[in-house]
Amino acid sequence: SLHRIKASGLKLQLCTNETQATRENFVRKLRAMGFDISVAQVTAPAPAACRLLRERGLRPHLLVHDDLVPEFAEIDKTNPNCVVLGDAAENFTYANLNEAFRLLIGMEKPVLISLGKGRYYKETDGLKLDVGAYMKALEYACDVQAEVVGKPAKRFFESALAELGVPPEQAIMIGDDIVSDVGGAQQCGMRALQVRTGKYRPSDENHPEVKPDAYVNNLAEAVDIILQEL
Amino acid sequence: SLHRIKASGLKLQLCTNETQATRENFVRKLRAMGFDISVAQVTAPAPAACRLLRERGLRPHLLVHDDLVPEFAEIDKTNPNCVVLGDAAENFTYANLNEAFRLLIGMEKPVLISLGKGRYYKETDGLKLDVGAYMKALEYACDVQAEVVGKPAKRFFESALAELGVPPEQAIMIGDDIVSDVGGAQQCGMRALQVRTGKYRPSDENHPEVKPDAYVNNLAEAVDIILQEL
Repeated sequence: SLHRIKASGLKLQLCTNETQATRENFVRKLRAMGFDISVAQVTAPAPAACRLLRERGLRPHLLVHDDLVPEFAEIDKTNPNCVVLGDAAENFTYANLNEAFRLLIGMEKPVLISLGKGRYYKETDGLKLDVGAYMKALEYACDVQAEVVGKPAKRFFESALAELGVPPEQAIMIGDDIVSDVGGAQQCGMRALQVRTGKYRPSDENHPEVKPDAYVNNLAEAVDIILQEL
Repeated sequence: SLHRIKASGLKLQLCTNETQATRENFVRKLRAMGFDISVAQVTAPAPAACRLLRERGLRPHLLVHDDLVPEFAEIDKTNPNCVVLGDAAENFTYANLNEAFRLLIGMEKPVLISLGKGRYYKETDGLKLDVGAYMKALEYACDVQAEVVGKPAKRFFESALAELGVPPEQAIMIGDDIVSDVGGAQQCGMRALQVRTGKYRPSDENHPEVKPDAYVNNLAEAVDIILQEL
């Protein structure tokens, strides 16, 4: 499907909420699976967070996965004035959560930036709490609202569109997550298809707030439809 | 102050949200400090949770402090059909949180019972996230609302009144927490005094929802007022 998109001359950008690896490692994994993707073709929460930190002169305390830390190599992390929260997995210890909490509660106006708001995800050894759950814990303890970088945040899709250099009405999002993919893209002015694969659930078709522009059975069918409409 | 209450013939019940120790240990600590208190005079979340578990035939998975486990000794914990969450402190590990989450998400209708909803508390080595923060994490991940046992839950004050054998209009609550102590007791039909000690903050006097029947500078002053009114 990716080859067919490329051959058609359409521009392509991957939008991922992956925060357990740098984009470099993420792309390496995809290339090993045979996908011809470059780092510039990936929009991910950590680089979006770095842009936001630079824009606002914020120095983060990181509570993220060890493998994500290199994304923040160029960012000043001394004397932190905000907390950046990712899917830290094994780094979500009692001590680390208390440390992030203490920094936040000690700030005059706590700034919590969360690299997503997923509830949970599945790994080979079972379901795991995702970053959104820990975000809610810190939000409640500090009486603060996190700023979410990553899908479904509007600015996340805007930066993907900026990478592509196209306006939202000329772009179409394909995704399996009714809220993060479909809802987020639509709020940004894009059309969005939901694939009936991955985390798609039949109940998504009765979602109270989000309605995709169309359903497709899989990515190949999405590409068929898009190429037909060209 | 406790001696004066006792000498006056008034009945006394201590209402605590302590979930890091059994009532026995809690009372032992108070007695060592010179307070003449018995276990029966203490209303605490764990025994309240045990009553609720028995009433509804619930078998808990416990995510609580090690020192609290004996409170649940008589409760059937095989093949759990609910999760009981306390201030587990060092037991709030990534693995334990994922385990509690998996049990909840695997239930047809997840039942989460929380022994309080405090945001944080202070220990000698600094501020710590309290049970409420972890409750929020599990609530969000499982899209469920926890049932809070402990202050400010109405049934918690009701069971304290039942222990005393007095109706709410004949009881008065004295506490330092505007929401948990004052608000909870008032919702139950009791009057409530806020002491200007402990976790009292001047900003409590402008609380948008809760207004104590009176402020007192400390427990001794509260006892003065109550004994004068007798």
